[in-house]
Amino acid sequence: MFWKMYHEDTIFGDITSEIIPKDLKIDGFVIAQEKCVVAGVDYIIENLKKIGLESQGVEDGSIVDRGETILKIRGEARKVLAAERTILNILSRLCGIATETRKIVDKIKKINPKIRVAATRKTLWGYLDKMAVKIGGGDPHRWNLGDMILVKDNHIKLIGLEKAIAIAKKASFTKKIEVEVENEEDALKVSKMGVDIIMLDNFNPENVCRIAKRLREYGVLIEVSGGITPENVEKYARCDIDIISMGYLTHSIKSINLSMDVRVIP
Amino acid sequence: MFWKMYHEDTIFGDITSEIIPKDLKIDGFVIAQEKCVVAGVDYIIENLKKIGLESQGVEDGSIVDRGETILKIRGEARKVLAAERTILNILSRLCGIATETRKIVDKIKKINPKIRVAATRKTLWGYLDKMAVKIGGGDPHRWNLGDMILVKDNHIKLIGLEKAIAIAKKASFTKKIEVEVENEEDALKVSKMGVDIIMLDNFNPENVCRIAKRLREYGVLIEVSGGITPENVEKYARCDIDIISMGYLTHSIKSINLSMDVRVIP
Amino acid sequence: MFWKMYHEDTIFGDITSEIIPKDLKIDGFVIAQEKCVVAGVDYIIENLKKIGLESQGVEDGSIVDRGETILKIRGEARKVLAAERTILNILSRLCGIATETRKIVDKIKKINPKIRVAATRKTLWGYLDKMAVKIGGGDPHRWNLGDMILVKDNHIKLIGLEKAIAIAKKASFTKKIEVEVENEEDALKVSKMGVDIIMLDNFNPENVCRIAKRLREYGVLIEVSGGITPENVEKYARCDIDIISMGYLTHSIKSINLSMDVRVIP
Amino acid sequence: MFWKMYHEDTIFGDITSEIIPKDLKIDGFVIAQEKCVVAGVDYIIENLKKIGLESQGVEDGSIVDRGETILKIRGEARKVLAAERTILNILSRLCGIATETRKIVDKIKKINPKIRVAATRKTLWGYLDKMAVKIGGGDPHRWNLGDMILVKDNHIKLIGLEKAIAIAKKASFTKKIEVEVENEEDALKVSKMGVDIIMLDNFNPENVCRIAKRLREYGVLIEVSGGITPENVEKYARCDIDIISMGYLTHSIKSINLSMDVRVIP
Amino acid sequence: MFWKMYHEDTIFGDITSEIIPKDLKIDGFVIAQEKCVVAGVDYIIENLKKIGLESQGVEDGSIVDRGETILKIRGEARKVLAAERTILNILSRLCGIATETRKIVDKIKKINPKIRVAATRKTLWGYLDKMAVKIGGGDPHRWNLGDMILVKDNHIKLIGLEKAIAIAKKASFTKKIEVEVENEEDALKVSKMGVDIIMLDNFNPENVCRIAKRLREYGVLIEVSGGITPENVEKYARCDIDIISMGYLTHSIKSINLSMDVRVIP
Amino acid sequence: MFWKMYHEDTIFGDITSEIIPKDLKIDGFVIAQEKCVVAGVDYIIENLKKIGLESQGVEDGSIVDRGETILKIRGEARKVLAAERTILNILSRLCGIATETRKIVDKIKKINPKIRVAATRKTLWGYLDKMAVKIGGGDPHRWNLGDMILVKDNHIKLIGLEKAIAIAKKASFTKKIEVEVENEEDALKVSKMGVDIIMLDNFNPENVCRIAKRLREYGVLIEVSGGITPENVEKYARCDIDIISMGYLTHSIKSINLSMDVRVIP
Repeated sequence: MFWKMYHEDTIFGDITSEIIPKDLKIDGFVIAQEKCVVAGVDYIIENLKKIGLESQGVEDGSIVDRGETILKIRGEARKVLAAERTILNILSRLCGIATETRKIVDKIKKINPKIRVAATRKTLWGYLDKMAVKIGGGDPHRWNLGDMILVKDNHIKLIGLEKAIAIAKKASFTKKIEVEVENEEDALKVSKMGVDIIMLDNFNPENVCRIAKRLREYGVLIEVSGGITPENVEKYARCDIDIISMGYLTHSIKSINLSMDVRVIP
Repeated sequence: MFWKMYHEDTIFGDITSEIIPKDLKIDGFVIAQEKCVVAGVDYIIENLKKIGLESQGVEDGSIVDRGETILKIRGEARKVLAAERTILNILSRLCGIATETRKIVDKIKKINPKIRVAATRKTLWGYLDKMAVKIGGGDPHRWNLGDMILVKDNHIKLIGLEKAIAIAKKASFTKKIEVEVENEEDALKVSKMGVDIIMLDNFNPENVCRIAKRLREYGVLIEVSGGITPENVEKYARCDIDIISMGYLTHSIKSINLSMDVRVIP
Repeated sequence: MFWKMYHEDTIFGDITSEIIPKDLKIDGFVIAQEKCVVAGVDYIIENLKKIGLESQGVEDGSIVDRGETILKIRGEARKVLAAERTILNILSRLCGIATETRKIVDKIKKINPKIRVAATRKTLWGYLDKMAVKIGGGDPHRWNLGDMILVKDNHIKLIGLEKAIAIAKKASFTKKIEVEVENEEDALKVSKMGVDIIMLDNFNPENVCRIAKRLREYGVLIEVSGGITPENVEKYARCDIDIISMGYLTHSIKSINLSMDVRVIP
Repeated sequence: MFWKMYHEDTIFGDITSEIIPKDLKIDGFVIAQEKCVVAGVDYIIENLKKIGLESQGVEDGSIVDRGETILKIRGEARKVLAAERTILNILSRLCGIATETRKIVDKIKKINPKIRVAATRKTLWGYLDKMAVKIGGGDPHRWNLGDMILVKDNHIKLIGLEKAIAIAKKASFTKKIEVEVENEEDALKVSKMGVDIIMLDNFNPENVCRIAKRLREYGVLIEVSGGITPENVEKYARCDIDIISMGYLTHSIKSINLSMDVRVIP
Repeated sequence: MFWKMYHEDTIFGDITSEIIPKDLKIDGFVIAQEKCVVAGVDYIIENLKKIGLESQGVEDGSIVDRGETILKIRGEARKVLAAERTILNILSRLCGIATETRKIVDKIKKINPKIRVAATRKTLWGYLDKMAVKIGGGDPHRWNLGDMILVKDNHIKLIGLEKAIAIAKKASFTKKIEVEVENEEDALKVSKMGVDIIMLDNFNPENVCRIAKRLREYGVLIEVSGGITPENVEKYARCDIDIISMGYLTHSIKSINLSMDVRVIP
Repeated sequence: MFWKMYHEDTIFGDITSEIIPKDLKIDGFVIAQEKCVVAGVDYIIENLKKIGLESQGVEDGSIVDRGETILKIRGEARKVLAAERTILNILSRLCGIATETRKIVDKIKKINPKIRVAATRKTLWGYLDKMAVKIGGGDPHRWNLGDMILVKDNHIKLIGLEKAIAIAKKASFTKKIEVEVENEEDALKVSKMGVDIIMLDNFNPENVCRIAKRLREYGVLIEVSGGITPENVEKYARCDIDIISMGYLTHSIKSINLSMDVRVIP
């Protein structure tokens, strides 16, 4: 995303920053305007190098308070200012995801430390969003459509549950198999068929708790998903499940408010 | 974004959809799970063509109710399913932006129909986000750092207000000049210097209303920005201003809930 | 690879084929010069479309005899001839991989139909090579470094066996964990630690058979790898193991001899 | 190829190497497991620089014995391990090509030092394969379809021998003209028409020796090609010819066995 | 352009420069063979860095005499020679554009210092050409089709003058609106409609002078364009106008004669 | 170049053409405003297809008079207008090159029909420029640094004439060798050494004629280059030489004046 954003922004130069003398060198300080879990600093440092800017910052995963500097950039004023918005846009979102993930992970940990809070593929930036979830203590879930089999409603509708699972089991021994179910009966049927993970989709907490108990004997991992929000997540955490996945973590997150200050290098 | 997302998703194939027979053809229906302003349909249709899928949908800018189909895709089941998440992720966000923009634009129109609601550069997807703002009735503002001069706090800090404006005026006659100010004194000074637009940054509504009156005689467009939310935007709209810009429209928006249904072509 | 090869070949045109009249249309026939399992036809057809050539061929996975046509291409003579070498180079290799894989899979099936013959990451064309292994009836194994954890000798050397496995288990629940071991003691230790797959690296068949028996009770999948050739593979297949992986399938394979005939469309 | 391979491998990170501490620095040693002619070291060094790894190695073209180090890489353990397979895959193949080329070149040199051993366009990696042939003492032949005219059977079939040559001669004076023939009569006809090189395709050694004598007076370079193997190449070398080209050198070569050792930097 | 040119040139290596020893280091001096305004030096320095060559030169915008060095490059002889033609081709053109622009700007300045000499979109290298115009003292005009509205003859033909302007005014407040007219009547009509700039297309100087006087009261900027050459440009400059734009500056410019000398580093 | 230009132009849309209704379909006619040799039509047609526009035109190499249509494009008005400038910029230049080349070729043909008029590498668009030279009847010369050896002054300065040629002769048998000389003595020396082509650089016509006579007996092709203009080219053509190469054909050419008319499809 860095490259795409920066390129889109500067393809015709930064006609405002050209008012600054070409040889003026500055320090830029990215400052948190609210308490947050930092994410994306490594990614930004790596990318700034490619456009000739040196920078250093706090560790990804650190918690910073309002007013703290999370990244310091040194270089030509024109370049720093041209990259300012790209840097802030990326860090604001990634810190937003990591902060919200950490908040939910901490809540869940108190109830059941074995449960993982996971992302979904409802992301805006794909891999980068999932990195932020990971930094926040969450599980990134599948990277893409090639690293786990996840049989969903549409697959089942087209080919049937039994047939879907039978074929899926012939796929590479390196990939786990997960199946999404929408009722208790299917949950049981699938668990008996020997898949790795079962996803209870759009069940209310009561049903999840009841069904989870019945599934435990089959040794399958239990994931709940669908309609889970910061408000109701704790109810699910009281069931004997393994994973809670939330699209919310990556599709509708509030960015953290960050700003950049500059200072001429004396 | 379509290409980036679809590529990231399918670089190693879709090992789940490979359980579906290769020659099965289906129709996929993207269905709104809540009322919304549609945005992104044209963009998706254009991109699906490139991967060999035909599709048609409602016009961008249409308002649809819960349960309505906004896009219908026809093709090989494997391909449709492999693209499902990319399609939904993009449309969910763009519809989310357009819907929220329209809501605010409609509110403002009732108070002062001359005011434009504008995006900022606090976007996640750059141009694409701004297209959604436009479809929602908003103004996309600058595309990038090359199509308008916008002198901000950091520029002024480095070179001074007067000097900044003097140099800016030598830039191409094709570009407008906007200056961000943080107090009334600067607002007046800048207006007298003959720039095209003045941005009142982080002023409360009372101050905006008072200052706007004093600036009107200089023929400058007046934009307010900074800390404007759906909650307080109407207060600003009661001042005699021209533009209200809101980062909120593109950095922290809630996606619209969309889903895809499939049906085998008989 | 198609695009890379074709681009490299034609970046300055095909100065030989320019001796053919521009409007001459031909059929090109890709003919097997030896019996083989066909692989890559779908891939080539898809790519020829992008350069404006229509083609059709036998199904990937078919067995053809010497003299049979596996692909027929129709279009401008200049274009068909310019693409000839790219088409033949890709199909020759992919058919070579699929044919050799099938041969070994068939041998193993007779001894123990439950054993999978798998590729390694010792490929020349990455994903494409693995597709050919799959078409030949083999298992593609990991796609890349992100879709399974495979702790190898160098990881263990740097961090130690127990620590490596302990950390690995904290990674995403969606990914399996495999550990490579080089002696019986480690094999047992690892199996007890609850990983998904154990790789016996560079063991001779006798040792594999003996150790496999001891590992079975831990429910771990057993893979053998290292120094396995078409000559010795059957000895390994007589042990109670699950997977035999062979770098040979993709790093040192003989291409199938294919040629292209042309005929002017009357 | 480096970039394509490395990107495909690490697009979602190296989830195994993440078990190693981020700041651990190591030396990686690429070690030959068999005697070979080294090729590709320069290419790898240049590419490792781009991902932030410093390395140094023996000169391309050197002969190393089993156990010798051909490349030493220094940097973060995670990065070195993530690049390990890409590095080994590329060097194994290029050393394989160079080693086999040198073996054949040396054989031929003893018989007739004027004969060049050349590659064909039957490559898997295009330019890179040809570089390895060059390092092994062979001739890379044409780079692509734009740097020499090579009239082959299909061209002749479509337009006729005389016409093909007549048109070819109008092409740029900067390009040589070679014609492939399949019988003695055509060989003589073409030689008289004043082309630069004649390719005797699929002739047995006896015929080549006889025909070559008759062609010498026309001042044309004589290349033999088609079905030439390490076993029969010396027979061809006893004829009075200029070039022996072998697809074998690049389409079906055995990779050299290389491995990587690591050591923590104290 | 640097990358495209250099890549096209060196995709198969520089087989001539390979005759130079690999480790020979040289200085290369780019020397002006005629007096000129220098442009492109910054651009070249930035790009040479990416291929591992250090260089330094005179400032863009400097005037140099015949025989002066404008750029000095240090590095491996093979690399410097491989890049020589790319460097010279780019600098020759950019210096040519800047020199010719300066010449015309200087002429116009003497007659009316307020008039800007502007480029058009009739460029060969897009943004890069416009940078050279800017360095020569000219105005780059629009970067692309997204940064100003410029209603031209074809738009008007398809939708009509009034309608075109009415719709254009609804576009983003950040973009200026210019309209091209072909007769006096339209010029007046458009000026009254409140656009930012009016372009008098293909008018002779007499007409321009007469019409410009009538337009002044509407506060619109006046640009003349179409058929303006170095020969007739001064006649236009005597009218009361704001901008003279000339396609000539970028579509048919003579390159400056530059050459490269080399010297072995002792 | 098409893609680069079109992308740069439309990356943020064509905000002017958006005033035209989305569904309006038009024909666009590219019309010659002066007599010219057409070049680039095939290239443009192929590229317009990729953006969804159908077009047809006169054959490359045709001569058209002022007022004739050379290309007709049919499609959405917005798309045709967005591509207008890209189309015209490319065709104007390529027709300019072809027209000027044809003019010189025709002049030379009358004096000595065996002489070829060739381009140099002093191009602005590389391969595309050379294609236009070819369409105009000229010889494209080398495509890049990999398809012929051309030993120039700087190579000789670094390694010496004899050594340069000796090493060059070891390069691939598929590549010709040309050497640039700057005095008669070197011309003779080089010719005796058995290279394919000799380039007399910056000689006046009298010297060329005298030297050419002396070189003929060595069977080398004779090229003259350096400072050759449309004015003096005929003097060179009276010498017994083979090739005249002119940088002028591609670095300082006047574009042909083309324009586009549009008509609504009824």
